[in-house]
Amino acid sequence: MHDTISLPPDEIPRSWYNILPDLPSPLPPPMDPQEGPSRLGNLGNIFSKGVLMQEGSTERYVRIPEEVRELYIQSGRPRPLVRARRLEKALNTPARLYYKSEFYSPTGSHKVNTAIPQAYYAKQEGYERMATETGAGQWGTALAYACSLVGLDLTVYWVRAASSWKAERFRLMQLYGADVHPSPSDRTEVGRGLLKEGDMDHPGGLGIAISEAIEDVSNDPRAVYSLGSVLNHVLLHQTIIGLEAKKQMEMVDDYPDVVVSCLGGGSNFGGLAIPFFRDRIKEGRDIKFVAAQSEVAPNLNGEYRYDFGDYAEQTPLLKMCTLGHREQFPPIKGDGLRYHAAAPIMSALRAEGYLDTIIYPSDEEYVFQQTKKFVETEGFLPAAESAYSIAAAMDEALACKESGEEKSILFNISGHGFMDMHGFADVLKLG
Amino acid sequence: MHDTISLPPDEIPRSWYNILPDLPSPLPPPMDPQEGPSRLGNLGNIFSKGVLMQEGSTERYVRIPEEVRELYIQSGRPRPLVRARRLEKALNTPARLYYKSEFYSPTGSHKVNTAIPQAYYAKQEGYERMATETGAGQWGTALAYACSLVGLDLTVYWVRAASSWKAERFRLMQLYGADVHPSPSDRTEVGRGLLKEGDMDHPGGLGIAISEAIEDVSNDPRAVYSLGSVLNHVLLHQTIIGLEAKKQMEMVDDYPDVVVSCLGGGSNFGGLAIPFFRDRIKEGRDIKFVAAQSEVAPNLNGEYRYDFGDYAEQTPLLKMCTLGHREQFPPIKGDGLRYHAAAPIMSALRAEGYLDTIIYPSDEEYVFQQTKKFVETEGFLPAAESAYSIAAAMDEALACKESGEEKSILFNISGHGFMDMHGFADVLKLG
Repeated sequence: MHDTISLPPDEIPRSWYNILPDLPSPLPPPMDPQEGPSRLGNLGNIFSKGVLMQEGSTERYVRIPEEVRELYIQSGRPRPLVRARRLEKALNTPARLYYKSEFYSPTGSHKVNTAIPQAYYAKQEGYERMATETGAGQWGTALAYACSLVGLDLTVYWVRAASSWKAERFRLMQLYGADVHPSPSDRTEVGRGLLKEGDMDHPGGLGIAISEAIEDVSNDPRAVYSLGSVLNHVLLHQTIIGLEAKKQMEMVDDYPDVVVSCLGGGSNFGGLAIPFFRDRIKEGRDIKFVAAQSEVAPNLNGEYRYDFGDYAEQTPLLKMCTLGHREQFPPIKGDGLRYHAAAPIMSALRAEGYLDTIIYPSDEEYVFQQTKKFVETEGFLPAAESAYSIAAAMDEALACKESGEEKSILFNISGHGFMDMHGFADVLKLG
Repeated sequence: MHDTISLPPDEIPRSWYNILPDLPSPLPPPMDPQEGPSRLGNLGNIFSKGVLMQEGSTERYVRIPEEVRELYIQSGRPRPLVRARRLEKALNTPARLYYKSEFYSPTGSHKVNTAIPQAYYAKQEGYERMATETGAGQWGTALAYACSLVGLDLTVYWVRAASSWKAERFRLMQLYGADVHPSPSDRTEVGRGLLKEGDMDHPGGLGIAISEAIEDVSNDPRAVYSLGSVLNHVLLHQTIIGLEAKKQMEMVDDYPDVVVSCLGGGSNFGGLAIPFFRDRIKEGRDIKFVAAQSEVAPNLNGEYRYDFGDYAEQTPLLKMCTLGHREQFPPIKGDGLRYHAAAPIMSALRAEGYLDTIIYPSDEEYVFQQTKKFVETEGFLPAAESAYSIAAAMDEALACKESGEEKSILFNISGHGFMDMHGFADVLKLG
């Protein structure tokens, strides 16, 4: 067997896996706040039916529409699982390291896995336009790609702190035909309010951008909102990552002792880990789960309580590990890790003690230095967020070196860094 | 069968195909000029034995070393062939369009296909360092990747005109550990001479950068030179593209009537087309070959004569279609197409009437506008050079629309454009 473990296209899973019926305790439902208009009541106005039905579904295996499966193949799925043998050697570790290569994606990240079904459902239901927010820019690009393929217009509100140093990704979204606005923008009340309070260079944040996108579609019946992380249906779509990885590990007769990834909102972590959480919950498999986060926003260490998903309190209350929806976080290169709360599913698993964290310093130097070793040995340039996943997997492998344990470590590389080189260059002081 | 045609890793060809014994007439050999030191005699000092032996070999099928085959798999081979059904529909053409997705590469281009074996041979032979030139930057990045994997140092001389607007690619090479210098540089006599004549911002050219890299290794016995295009061994390694594509077209019971790609030096064009040239020469198959070029350097329309491969006349004389090795060409975004001559093999086929060209205007607007349609329908962002390949394939498909012919058109997308967005943005006036 080769170190690159490929699954034939026909072996792409036919269903996503829904963990809701298998969680140790039922997931606390979304709720309306005491005051103001009903946010739950507004969900029907902002989301497509396709995703709303999935959001609360307790169907264990959700069939992937055939057209979506074809688009998955068109987008390069299944993606290889790679045994990182060169990295193992460089670390001199007895651990076996495997990474899922979600960076082999047309837009460069795992976000296409949910962008495709979300755009597909919106188009099926007759909408003409989607609106969304984006943090690191990966999600906006992925939805721009998906909307372009199915034939929908797209408006993107992009956290200004990230958009300002990612001019090329900005243009890529435009090339797909998307209409992109740094957030806060002057197109919404929320945005105008913040620009008035602060200066015109307000750095923004994912919560603010979400508010802008929701406000946008709330005023346009032909438009539908789309969220790139956090919600149950997003994690459901992303389980394609872990379902494929499981088949691929079977192909080499292995099974992970540790599952690692970075966690911002939770979509890439959940996508990889949820099928393995199932095995721990239902079959008692002994698996450790480690989420890599930044000290600027270690949301899994936040309080487990009901909170809003956005700055302007337009979403329902969700029970999440949260740092508070009005909290501001200093910019880091791994901008996708700068969100105030973790997905309800990931938060519930955290609260039940199923999920560990490792928190990296805000200067990002250790993370990027470790990642440089990965780039030199494995040859793939990860996104800034994925660098946290790599650093955490390497730390687990180094712990195995200390202890002599021959653990199998599975991690996800959620995106490539071809458009994030400025970030690496700044931190590592390259040319 | 899906529109994405995947070959299992075990089906990667075990040999490269060498067209030398099958050319209609024997390839004119490299020669020494009348004056100066023997360039042929110096080849042994600048190239590895592995590639020198392949350069003049007439062995029809050259075995791929097992380690190289494994590195090919590690680098994501085999790469998918995609039926561009969405683009066909948008063009309303009866033609069938297929593209080989060489952009699914760790460094973003087909250049890894020859970088890997070249670095492998150099390491095997005990060298410690390689030196090379690069034009668009794809080749330098690919060799930096390969050197990093096998454990060699690398020095890159990068045509200043391209390096100046590709800061991110510059840093990517550095991240792989390469030592990168805009060319002309002050590290060589050739470079210092040009900087003295002109100003310090001399835009450079591929011929000049080649001279610098050759001069560099000529003074260091532990270093070996590597060329990313033009030479027979480079085209030999690249045939992996066409050999895979042929198997993939067989899988869908199709065969190309037209084979299209861009041609700068000839490595991506030759890589795709050479196995099909064989079928035309040996089996009389009716295939049309079209090379897309820029009017700034339409080298296939140049004179077919002996010329130097580099500016400073350090290479032997090669019989090529050439515009003259001292000719200067205005910068374009598709910098990889700005070389004065076509590979000897491609030039010989051109001279024998086997190879057509299509020349696009230097403003690049038509090419990039056509490519925008490709991006919107197929979702993949090509490198600036590959945009020419796409435009030419689309032009062939539009001709089929006129004539009603149901031709099968095979083209190559040699690289992705994630690091070339400035180019698209400038020409298409984005954001």
